[in-house]
Amino acid sequence: MNAPAPVVGRLPGYLQALESLLRQGITTVSSEELARRCGVGSAVLRRDLSHVGASGRRGVGYDCAQSAARLRVFMGLDRTRRIGIVGAGRLGSALADYAGIRTSGFELVAVFDVAAPVVGSVVGGVPVAHLDALPEVAAERGLELLVIAVPGPQAQEVADLAVAAGVRGLLNFAPVVLSVPSGVHVQHVDLATELQVLAHYTAAAPAPAPVSIPAPVSAETVVISRESQ
Amino acid sequence: MNAPAPVVGRLPGYLQALESLLRQGITTVSSEELARRCGVGSAVLRRDLSHVGASGRRGVGYDCAQSAARLRVFMGLDRTRRIGIVGAGRLGSALADYAGIRTSGFELVAVFDVAAPVVGSVVGGVPVAHLDALPEVAAERGLELLVIAVPGPQAQEVADLAVAAGVRGLLNFAPVVLSVPSGVHVQHVDLATELQVLAHYTAAAPAPAPVSIPAPVSAETVVISRESQ
Repeated sequence: MNAPAPVVGRLPGYLQALESLLRQGITTVSSEELARRCGVGSAVLRRDLSHVGASGRRGVGYDCAQSAARLRVFMGLDRTRRIGIVGAGRLGSALADYAGIRTSGFELVAVFDVAAPVVGSVVGGVPVAHLDALPEVAAERGLELLVIAVPGPQAQEVADLAVAAGVRGLLNFAPVVLSVPSGVHVQHVDLATELQVLAHYTAAAPAPAPVSIPAPVSAETVVISRESQ
Repeated sequence: MNAPAPVVGRLPGYLQALESLLRQGITTVSSEELARRCGVGSAVLRRDLSHVGASGRRGVGYDCAQSAARLRVFMGLDRTRRIGIVGAGRLGSALADYAGIRTSGFELVAVFDVAAPVVGSVVGGVPVAHLDALPEVAAERGLELLVIAVPGPQAQEVADLAVAAGVRGLLNFAPVVLSVPSGVHVQHVDLATELQVLAHYTAAAPAPAPVSIPAPVSAETVVISRESQ
């Protein structure tokens, strides 16, 4: 179960692509085609999938259903994982309405906020509870993963409350680095960080002039995403 | 300029931590303290910073201003980079109001949408333009990086329009893998992917029972974030 972080970061893309193929009635896929869909090199894909115990057959490729099942087990998605969101503002409510939550293996079981007008309203199909109720709601509903969509100054306090209530996985959208005990895992999404990484990769290009001349678009398509190396 | 992707992914954290220290009037920092603030090991931090040409002094640490400046040059943040957002819905408007845009080195110069009530309204201090105007607005304002905050089915079309208009960096929040020409860089933020990575790291824990017993909280604090290895 101890795959390196970059490998783990690529696995969701493989799972999502395989399940998309299955929904289209496609039952086998070559490593090259799957790699192309996921924006990685096929050698990287084959190494990653062998890491999780999903093997292809030379000349045939991967069995989509078996490979997806193997990935789900490896990723702890062979049972529905219960998630909650703290912060029912624009970001939190947009995340709550994300249609892919259920298909990716999750159930939104709780939403929390502190603003009086919001508490009690329905967000993502769930009535918003006050943050003070997090410990009991987390216990009642078996909350496992929590999305933190609150302003920076409040994020650490929310994380502390969640950890004390037994939550072991946090997805942090606030622009602060969270302090958590060992055994608690944090994924951090920060707009500034993502933009700064993009700034680096586009740094060589000169600043566009007020009247820009579009660069020629090459026929070759290459997807460079955070997960690829 | 060719640092591996995991290194590049950690640099924004270092820059943000150094600038935070400077705002507090702190002018030098040890590698251990800086590493602690960023949630990485100090050996990793020292290797990463030497990669960008920022060197510490044994027993003293890093000069915050010099190291931050070196990072800004390496990351193409030594000049303000002009960004735009497509999609002025809940996600796009939340991103537009993100207070850290300017301090992290960016200026929001354009917001686009297609919904009639939204076009013309002010989001993030910028009047929303119709998506059809992207090519001319991109040229007029020297747009460099574009945030895509539209539903999945529309994301590729928006990416194509942006690339044709000369944009070379895309931050994609839609749940699709974008196809772009070589030379165009995409950072992808996908809720399902982030949750699935978290699901993997918390897979070993049994599903919480309806009445959960909180796990003991250890005094040691370790931050595990996507950037750490």
